[in-house]
Amino acid sequence: MPTLTTENASPESDTGLRELRQSSDKILSGRFLQVFSDQVTLPDGKNTFREYIVHPGAVMVIPLLTDDQGSTRIVLERQFRYPVGEVMIELPAGKRDGQEDLLLCAQRELREETGYTATQWAHAGVLHPCISYSTEYIDIWFAQGLQAGPAQLDAGEFLEVFSASTDEFFAWCRDGRITDAKTLTGALWLQNYLSGAWPLQWRDAA
Amino acid sequence: MPTLTTENASPESDTGLRELRQSSDKILSGRFLQVFSDQVTLPDGKNTFREYIVHPGAVMVIPLLTDDQGSTRIVLERQFRYPVGEVMIELPAGKRDGQEDLLLCAQRELREETGYTATQWAHAGVLHPCISYSTEYIDIWFAQGLQAGPAQLDAGEFLEVFSASTDEFFAWCRDGRITDAKTLTGALWLQNYLSGAWPLQWRDAA
Repeated sequence: MPTLTTENASPESDTGLRELRQSSDKILSGRFLQVFSDQVTLPDGKNTFREYIVHPGAVMVIPLLTDDQGSTRIVLERQFRYPVGEVMIELPAGKRDGQEDLLLCAQRELREETGYTATQWAHAGVLHPCISYSTEYIDIWFAQGLQAGPAQLDAGEFLEVFSASTDEFFAWCRDGRITDAKTLTGALWLQNYLSGAWPLQWRDAA
Repeated sequence: MPTLTTENASPESDTGLRELRQSSDKILSGRFLQVFSDQVTLPDGKNTFREYIVHPGAVMVIPLLTDDQGSTRIVLERQFRYPVGEVMIELPAGKRDGQEDLLLCAQRELREETGYTATQWAHAGVLHPCISYSTEYIDIWFAQGLQAGPAQLDAGEFLEVFSASTDEFFAWCRDGRITDAKTLTGALWLQNYLSGAWPLQWRDAA
């Protein structure tokens, strides 16, 4: 079994894996979901179809609070998610508005959903929630220096904002109270940031 | 801002968040994607629509190897993912076949995609990749005591199997070479398993 190295992970080594678009059809223009079906040529020359959702992209924020004892707390939300039929515990997140700058999008979503503004921001990375059937990416940001203010939820948006200690947050990731993949990815980032393994480059809010 | 506790997280506290189904229509019956649009009543009594993919569920496996020096390595895959247009580094995963037992599904997917069978398995948890527009869940399993064998890829399935050290794996999660949310969630589990923070209950394969 090969070991992947920087050398053999070059694009040249992807030729046996890549699929080539032959045609693309929009098969659903929904109120919310836009679905396409593309005919593609597989690496062996055969043709097949790929169906997928086209998504505008999104951001997620890992908002850090410091309590009176100097311990870090994290701002979370509880929101009913209809497809899974449950109230889910999540990090604040939301869709990108057109070609909106991703940091401005993160600042807007944090403010609208939780009321918080933050004096410092740091970019962590990006995640793809659903690579087999959605183009969606979620850009991941940390926020600190939080100042409370009024939330401005969208019409039809219902959620509760609360805070938890980092110990509680990680315990819930383990015991199944948190199962949202973006939030679990946020936990990976938070754990490694807090341990010092994955340092961040903080910048002041514009 | 409230602190979520076991007490106030009871279902009674969800009444201000839950949405009630009024009707459900299938709006796309694709080759692969099944999309529904449900009319729902929001907590404030207004009606709106929720569109979502109905998915059969899936499993993911975190396969652990031990190298000649006694260090843990992890089995990974490289696979072209058409919606994101990139070859992605992923943990082995696959869809549940009907009401297939989830452990048997994990064993089947590991064997089919990588050729490996494992003598010991441990259940970790579950993740939801896309809670705003898909019913999909992914059940998470660890496997160890790996025995190599022939892979049995589905027709039209092209992927490369390789192994990496755990240090490499975590470095790629940080530097953006791994952005698949299920695999990043697997990294959270692996890191906490290896540190001893999240012990597993191993069972022998049937």
